[in-house]
Amino acid sequence: MAQENLSVVLHAKGDLRLDNRPVPEPGPDEVLLQMHSVGICGSDVHYWQNGRIGDFVLRKPMVLGHEAAGRVVKVGSEVTHLKAGDRVAIEPGVPRKMDEFFKMGRYNLSPDIFFCATPPDDGNLCRYYAHSANFCYKLPDNVTFEEGALIEPLSVGIHACSRAGVTLGSTVLICGAGTIGLVSLLAAKAMGASQVIISDLCAERLEMAKELGADFQLTVTREDGAQQLAKKVEDTLGAQPHVTIECTGVESCIQTAIYATRSSRQRRCQRSGHQRSLSLLQHLANGHLHVGVG
Amino acid sequence: MAQENLSVVLHAKGDLRLDNRPVPEPGPDEVLLQMHSVGICGSDVHYWQNGRIGDFVLRKPMVLGHEAAGRVVKVGSEVTHLKAGDRVAIEPGVPRKMDEFFKMGRYNLSPDIFFCATPPDDGNLCRYYAHSANFCYKLPDNVTFEEGALIEPLSVGIHACSRAGVTLGSTVLICGAGTIGLVSLLAAKAMGASQVIISDLCAERLEMAKELGADFQLTVTREDGAQQLAKKVEDTLGAQPHVTIECTGVESCIQTAIYATRSSRQRRCQRSGHQRSLSLLQHLANGHLHVGVG
Amino acid sequence: MAQENLSVVLHAKGDLRLDNRPVPEPGPDEVLLQMHSVGICGSDVHYWQNGRIGDFVLRKPMVLGHEAAGRVVKVGSEVTHLKAGDRVAIEPGVPRKMDEFFKMGRYNLSPDIFFCATPPDDGNLCRYYAHSANFCYKLPDNVTFEEGALIEPLSVGIHACSRAGVTLGSTVLICGAGTIGLVSLLAAKAMGASQVIISDLCAERLEMAKELGADFQLTVTREDGAQQLAKKVEDTLGAQPHVTIECTGVESCIQTAIYATRSSRQRRCQRSGHQRSLSLLQHLANGHLHVGVG
Amino acid sequence: MAQENLSVVLHAKGDLRLDNRPVPEPGPDEVLLQMHSVGICGSDVHYWQNGRIGDFVLRKPMVLGHEAAGRVVKVGSEVTHLKAGDRVAIEPGVPRKMDEFFKMGRYNLSPDIFFCATPPDDGNLCRYYAHSANFCYKLPDNVTFEEGALIEPLSVGIHACSRAGVTLGSTVLICGAGTIGLVSLLAAKAMGASQVIISDLCAERLEMAKELGADFQLTVTREDGAQQLAKKVEDTLGAQPHVTIECTGVESCIQTAIYATRSSRQRRCQRSGHQRSLSLLQHLANGHLHVGVG
Repeated sequence: MAQENLSVVLHAKGDLRLDNRPVPEPGPDEVLLQMHSVGICGSDVHYWQNGRIGDFVLRKPMVLGHEAAGRVVKVGSEVTHLKAGDRVAIEPGVPRKMDEFFKMGRYNLSPDIFFCATPPDDGNLCRYYAHSANFCYKLPDNVTFEEGALIEPLSVGIHACSRAGVTLGSTVLICGAGTIGLVSLLAAKAMGASQVIISDLCAERLEMAKELGADFQLTVTREDGAQQLAKKVEDTLGAQPHVTIECTGVESCIQTAIYATRSSRQRRCQRSGHQRSLSLLQHLANGHLHVGVG
Repeated sequence: MAQENLSVVLHAKGDLRLDNRPVPEPGPDEVLLQMHSVGICGSDVHYWQNGRIGDFVLRKPMVLGHEAAGRVVKVGSEVTHLKAGDRVAIEPGVPRKMDEFFKMGRYNLSPDIFFCATPPDDGNLCRYYAHSANFCYKLPDNVTFEEGALIEPLSVGIHACSRAGVTLGSTVLICGAGTIGLVSLLAAKAMGASQVIISDLCAERLEMAKELGADFQLTVTREDGAQQLAKKVEDTLGAQPHVTIECTGVESCIQTAIYATRSSRQRRCQRSGHQRSLSLLQHLANGHLHVGVG
Repeated sequence: MAQENLSVVLHAKGDLRLDNRPVPEPGPDEVLLQMHSVGICGSDVHYWQNGRIGDFVLRKPMVLGHEAAGRVVKVGSEVTHLKAGDRVAIEPGVPRKMDEFFKMGRYNLSPDIFFCATPPDDGNLCRYYAHSANFCYKLPDNVTFEEGALIEPLSVGIHACSRAGVTLGSTVLICGAGTIGLVSLLAAKAMGASQVIISDLCAERLEMAKELGADFQLTVTREDGAQQLAKKVEDTLGAQPHVTIECTGVESCIQTAIYATRSSRQRRCQRSGHQRSLSLLQHLANGHLHVGVG
Repeated sequence: MAQENLSVVLHAKGDLRLDNRPVPEPGPDEVLLQMHSVGICGSDVHYWQNGRIGDFVLRKPMVLGHEAAGRVVKVGSEVTHLKAGDRVAIEPGVPRKMDEFFKMGRYNLSPDIFFCATPPDDGNLCRYYAHSANFCYKLPDNVTFEEGALIEPLSVGIHACSRAGVTLGSTVLICGAGTIGLVSLLAAKAMGASQVIISDLCAERLEMAKELGADFQLTVTREDGAQQLAKKVEDTLGAQPHVTIECTGVESCIQTAIYATRSSRQRRCQRSGHQRSLSLLQHLANGHLHVGVG
């Protein structure tokens, strides 16, 4: 095994370095991974440029990266379901405690959770990385490492659609055609949504959304009013959408989501880590809000 | 049967009259009721003083009253489950169409619903009133007419606690100790909530809440910050509440609700019909918002 | 409009006649339909051959047919959402009362429901038929009458998968590759099921299932034990299925469903109207059972 | 600390001994408890008399007892929420793996779970016992050790009512007035059930149920038919119960539960470990079945 472990380390706001860190030894429940593919998330860029996201502030050097796949090169003493050579995708959040959140199946909300590349926890944009074996998932042969690394952002779309109740025949508005908007689109269509309308400021993004299966694209401008946009959505679909998935974190879009969605149905806001000054609604949005009426 | 049907009719903003209206003839699915007890809701007062609530504008004379109980005096030709002499409580909202909302059990959200004392639909603050028999519920012998009339506001508290998932052992914050706050308190305790903390500006209201079973009272002032109040709630309960039921419609209280509640749990806002200028969050509140995180 | 209304009328067990009945006049909430396509369901055949299904006994002549689509030729006085010329699919069950089942969105369970071709209610295997307009659904231009008639059986599969919680990534065992098994297969795949294994005694049925998207087929014999079959299912999928949808009504298959399914997950039994002597489990199966563990 | 650790050890069917075992050393995540109160469950007696329950077979000596409370005397190196002197109730099932069941909040179903006094796992009917600190719950000052030990059986009733959806106004049939029947009764009333009817062969048990709040008692005999009993329940309540909780594991009672309960509602069967020869329905019952219709 190579002894070099080149790692992309953020030392301070704007101070990104390529350090050679020691190859870690996996704990009893861990596997050591030779990293293959690691996505660069907006949050990685945001930490680099701002040194913080909300209350998460970089106070010591941190390895970036949390959208990742690699190959198992060593297994801890108590790991039985993985072996050296296995190709795996990594779930970047690992609960540290069997707390009430874990006990009720919502460990993603545990306040003590370890999360790759969220201060002070190191990420995996490096050559070798040790991770809880229970949060590494073996890839089928027909899934590449690159695709494996994209499972993490894809899971955001799946979680959003799942919590929002997208199912066969749902009509869905997705606000924003960035990465999260697009993975939400893919998830919604895979869950059987009959019609998805997606909005964005940028026509090129909407073109990509069209290629990925969006039924309707809605180009918006900064001047459009929330109620006006909600009306356009209703006119396009022939009825208000059952579900809205808000993927911009922008207050006016959140307003559109609220006006656009059918009563008794779900809007859902995805975390979007880029805002500096958060309004209350954006505070809600950062908390993975889902709201219903009735 | 008396031929007089004295009715409290709102003719215009501030113009309330006691008119003698004809005694209605019940339709095939209706019962004619001799009214006994009708509560005066804040919305009745609001229509009287303002002539409107939000988009509901008084355009022609309307009988007030929707919290009501009475005695059946005549039954329509197709009514089989009620008979003359039965004492009943009235559900004031009757869906007009078998629309998608009705088909999925959410007829309260039907845009076409008939609702007593909501323009243009007449209420039942009168001597004789005909209502859909399917929305009249026979009172047990141990429930008085006065109690029967209070079932309607009580149901708001039950619906709130039910949608918010209050159950055995829940800890609950209720913002506001007015009528809706108090019925939410009663419902929460009856559903097994272990601890209920209730907040209000007014100490007398909190005293009443204490008599009705509130475990903790929190007197607030207009100067208190939302995060500061959320902290007080957490300190009092020893942990963040599982559920918050917001019964004020005031933006700062909605903020408190959001900050105070435990992740993955529910906040719920009750409709409060009194605001004239609605912020977006208040718009949400008027729509019977419930929000969750995670 | 033709004055002839040739109708397929079951007069008694084995006594099927082509009668000319009067063209009905639609009530205020009804539409008169010129029927185009009506499926022959197993229950139609069963009534013909046996004169009854369980407690539903033919006591007077009854028109058969409940899987149907037609064209609106006349609308009742209060119908606003349909007009002459509209092509519609028919929902055969129409609740007669706004009872507790309707109020909670489960009108399909109302004991008083009207249901086409279930004694004593007439079906629609005839030329002209009047039906509640609220239970007629306009077909899009790209859906044929024949497809419209098949929406009724398809909806059984959708309801089964929906109640059983099939979603993106679900693994599903379907017992039986008859009509209900096949529509359940179609629904499961459309909802995002990743793997569906379907079992039947008949290899030809399984061939059809393969064409319709089944990932695995399991040919069973009458001698196979329930636990043995459950093991085969687990071996084929690599794990127990998340969901089992039982579409045979045969006790041994219900046993297989119970053994095969993963803990905490759902089995669901579809109504299958053909049994004469019902065991208790079959009684459950007739009631659209869904069961979970944990 | 006393070095003696007298323990009630089952060596083989019928061979129960009082052994002095070493005082265990708590692991990093564990606490050492001085046991105070340990209930004797029917399953303890069953292992003693039969040496097995279903597939769980005693193959080596095992300490009995799993309904327990005690005092913390030593804490592991990583335990932060408990300290020596704390009085705690014990959750006897501790998941060994972060498997799919744990991740979705159903760790009680994990096939690898450690469970006190279930072969081969030792129980806590002894003087000193080490247990995962995450599954020890600090008792409030107003809860005695004896009450603490009864939280485990009480939780069975709470889980049953929770899964069955008992809430404010529910009407509930409980089959069996043994321990599980009685704790289900307590839980149902605490969750707001308006009427609970409980059945048993034994009039004395029903007398106890009455004292604990049962609204109606139904004495049954071995000759009563399931449909006949279902009718009696309906006649007593004035309508079929919303929920039935089956706490006997007897096939005829399970049948009664199925016939008695209202459509679209829930029956739930509790595990009852005493049967030797299990029918399929009893197999279901052992798996904590809940079933619904519609």
